[in-house]
Amino acid sequence: MKLKVRLTHLDAGGKLLVIMNAEDAEELGVRSLSRVMLRKNGLEAIAIVNTTTRMFHRGSVGVCLEVQQRLQLCEGEMIDVELSNPPNSLNHIKKRLKGRKLTHAEIKEIIRDVVNGLLSDVELTSFVTSIQHFALDMDEATSLSIAMVESGKTLQLDKKIIVDKHSIGGVPGDKTTLLVVPIVASCGLTIPKCSSRAITSAAGTADRAEVYMPVNLSLEEMRRVLEKADGCIVWGGALHLAPADDIFVNIEFPLSIDPLLLPSIMSKKKAVGSKFVVIDIPTGAEVKVKTMVEAQLLAQDFIEIGRRLEMNVQCAITYGGQPVGHAIGPALEAREALENLTNMRLHRDLVDKATDIAGMLLEMAGIQDGEAKAMYALKSGRAERKMREIIAEQGGNPDINPEDIPVGQYTLDIEAEHHGILLWIDMPRLVEIARLAGSPKDKGAGVLLHKKLGEKVSKGDKLFTVYSEKAGKLESVYSSLKDSPIMLVGHSMEMTLSCVKDYKPQPDRFMLDR
Amino acid sequence: MKLKVRLTHLDAGGKLLVIMNAEDAEELGVRSLSRVMLRKNGLEAIAIVNTTTRMFHRGSVGVCLEVQQRLQLCEGEMIDVELSNPPNSLNHIKKRLKGRKLTHAEIKEIIRDVVNGLLSDVELTSFVTSIQHFALDMDEATSLSIAMVESGKTLQLDKKIIVDKHSIGGVPGDKTTLLVVPIVASCGLTIPKCSSRAITSAAGTADRAEVYMPVNLSLEEMRRVLEKADGCIVWGGALHLAPADDIFVNIEFPLSIDPLLLPSIMSKKKAVGSKFVVIDIPTGAEVKVKTMVEAQLLAQDFIEIGRRLEMNVQCAITYGGQPVGHAIGPALEAREALENLTNMRLHRDLVDKATDIAGMLLEMAGIQDGEAKAMYALKSGRAERKMREIIAEQGGNPDINPEDIPVGQYTLDIEAEHHGILLWIDMPRLVEIARLAGSPKDKGAGVLLHKKLGEKVSKGDKLFTVYSEKAGKLESVYSSLKDSPIMLVGHSMEMTLSCVKDYKPQPDRFMLDR
Repeated sequence: MKLKVRLTHLDAGGKLLVIMNAEDAEELGVRSLSRVMLRKNGLEAIAIVNTTTRMFHRGSVGVCLEVQQRLQLCEGEMIDVELSNPPNSLNHIKKRLKGRKLTHAEIKEIIRDVVNGLLSDVELTSFVTSIQHFALDMDEATSLSIAMVESGKTLQLDKKIIVDKHSIGGVPGDKTTLLVVPIVASCGLTIPKCSSRAITSAAGTADRAEVYMPVNLSLEEMRRVLEKADGCIVWGGALHLAPADDIFVNIEFPLSIDPLLLPSIMSKKKAVGSKFVVIDIPTGAEVKVKTMVEAQLLAQDFIEIGRRLEMNVQCAITYGGQPVGHAIGPALEAREALENLTNMRLHRDLVDKATDIAGMLLEMAGIQDGEAKAMYALKSGRAERKMREIIAEQGGNPDINPEDIPVGQYTLDIEAEHHGILLWIDMPRLVEIARLAGSPKDKGAGVLLHKKLGEKVSKGDKLFTVYSEKAGKLESVYSSLKDSPIMLVGHSMEMTLSCVKDYKPQPDRFMLDR
Repeated sequence: MKLKVRLTHLDAGGKLLVIMNAEDAEELGVRSLSRVMLRKNGLEAIAIVNTTTRMFHRGSVGVCLEVQQRLQLCEGEMIDVELSNPPNSLNHIKKRLKGRKLTHAEIKEIIRDVVNGLLSDVELTSFVTSIQHFALDMDEATSLSIAMVESGKTLQLDKKIIVDKHSIGGVPGDKTTLLVVPIVASCGLTIPKCSSRAITSAAGTADRAEVYMPVNLSLEEMRRVLEKADGCIVWGGALHLAPADDIFVNIEFPLSIDPLLLPSIMSKKKAVGSKFVVIDIPTGAEVKVKTMVEAQLLAQDFIEIGRRLEMNVQCAITYGGQPVGHAIGPALEAREALENLTNMRLHRDLVDKATDIAGMLLEMAGIQDGEAKAMYALKSGRAERKMREIIAEQGGNPDINPEDIPVGQYTLDIEAEHHGILLWIDMPRLVEIARLAGSPKDKGAGVLLHKKLGEKVSKGDKLFTVYSEKAGKLESVYSSLKDSPIMLVGHSMEMTLSCVKDYKPQPDRFMLDR
């Protein structure tokens, strides 16, 4: 069937989509989400069909940006549209829907077609949901990691010892990476740190680091920084290290599920050539991993997958019961990290966590007394100098000081209503408040804690301060805080947490960030 | 945020979709597939967001047809767009993703939101896939059936005994309904038969009946036909009896899964007010239900759901090893059915099946010797007169005779290459051939069998004839048939069916039609 091209300028999220008139589609024998083969002057592409009764008349076909670019199409030109079989990878997805595990070759084919935009949202979702229901076994997780690496770019570094760290996420204010990278790099190891931006959290490491310096580096720019400074903190999203993962995230996010945690993290570690990796697994009732048993099992999986991918992996199971340090939100956290790097102020928990993880990496790389050496790098100012070197190489101002970092000019102080001990912090709500205030988009927005668990509180003491760049956003924060408190101050825990009289679904507090 | 409306004229398949500039979306804090609340002059709607970098500039928002109509929007007018929470039903879907069964109230809310277009493809797919993995229990299936009935229209008939029959499908050439409806109606029962069109098969009952008469009736027109003739055969798709089901089919079809079989069928029987229902479960190696054990279990489920929906259900487990009668394809089948109704020619298997099922319905309604009475109705010409009455009431030509029905003018005869017995027919390939020839869209296309299982065949005997309305389609049939045969003629079965030397996925032969 010859059809006239109509450019829609619609970006289909990487998918190859065409919009056909419903009668043309029936004539050709395709339904919505069936496939057609498009051909023009020797170029061809398989596209997914959507149908319309009114957007286009018979004889016309709307093409999304991706199809336009793939086939170099112009408005009004004719292309050949024929019925096509779905890609073979769809058979593999259907096979898994029937409860069968997938082979390496099948997973490779799926990932290739995901990246090439050949699978529809319905097909992608059934695959992700199937993995949510019947978890990946070790073979599948390994194959997925390898396929994700092979479908993307990789970093080739001429360095002896390449190490990396990653937190599976979930603890607000976790700026540990901003300390670990300069500590480890200042000890002679190479750490090509790729970080993500916030999806459901108040700040991702990339958001925090961006307060100091550009983080949207290309792979070549990243390589250049590493050659000189042995460390970097860049945003992973622009590097195309595992492009399939970005597509899966778009499915996982609306469903609040995270079945691809292992391959998502491990593929990116492999893609940058890491040999020694520490995975941080924060554990606590209000983060992703609730119990030590779960944490141990997950750690075992990370170590085993690491072995199969030829990476030496160790895991740090860390306390996830309250925020790390006092600051939550990109600028507040960047400021706090810099205070610690410059020894202007040390946050015990942050320093403890950073030197523990850095110490593990040093020892994995053969350096004895890792933690002590990490602490020395921090206290001696060597980590600070390394951080300033990295900032300079990534194009930031190497002379930046904590007080130079602007934070939101609108603030709201929350005070204690009575004396006691700070017994409990609602971390998901803390994130909610920071996001209401504008995090992560408004870098200066966030929350600064003045008290942490177990500290004595007097009536009228400031418990925390909310920062915002916009007065209107602070008003939303104010009305949200009025409804229910975020911290519990008292002398002993109140035993009844909630009276359930009828069923009321709890608000969704899912953390996808990993 | 105030945005300028841009009409896209895109039909989003019933969903409320808007397309926002990516920067506007980020400013508002929404990702693709998040929700926004749209407001204009007191009207409001929650819509699903897609983002674009190029289709619309900042400050504009593209709206699909469904949103345009809901809010009565004009090109260029301003609307208010604010962040919105996802509908509550999404929490229920997420709950089921976690392995929890759903309550009646939750299922009701999901179905309501499905019908109102509030759920995205990703969300719908995760729900359907979840049911594929953890099958509906009886409570859920019942609740889904009830919710589907409540979300659609229902037929109110002032008739004493309303009966119905349904085949779960899968056997090519199954025109039984075209005989059962007039037989039963001619015996004084009322049978409001709603049928579907082919999705993956060569012909649905609606496609077959449309050869005699219009089948796209409204519910009111259907009621009028039933008041006069006590029977009808209409297309269910235009009646909005269970509109959620049509939306689920769009998800099930590309995935080749059918987890909603029970509520899909039973909701429609309930919606037309049936009291006595026979479900036909064809059983055999090449249809949906492979074994008697499976068939018995499925029958039990149908009977139990019927009980809960206050319908008396019985099941007929029928032989599904070869096509019913000799004709496959809308016109060929309609002609064959009319030959039997007019007693011009009787196909033993078709008559046997039709009178058995009609007999079961008669006995359920309290009429003794059901099968004999059904046979008498057929042989005496009473069923034929009833069918002509129905044809007249639905607006067809009541004087139609088998020879008046046009079939494809291009034919291809396939002859036996040696003597023997017809031992095996590849039914899925038979359907494939009929569809290649143009079925179901080209009514005259199809296949006419000249031999059936167990019949003697001499070399050169015609095995079957393919009919097509277009010479080009017959060429595709010819090349497909050259590749591999569809029938096996011999003196005993060849024992090796296939040698597996390496893995080659089999072509997809899924039957969604039910």
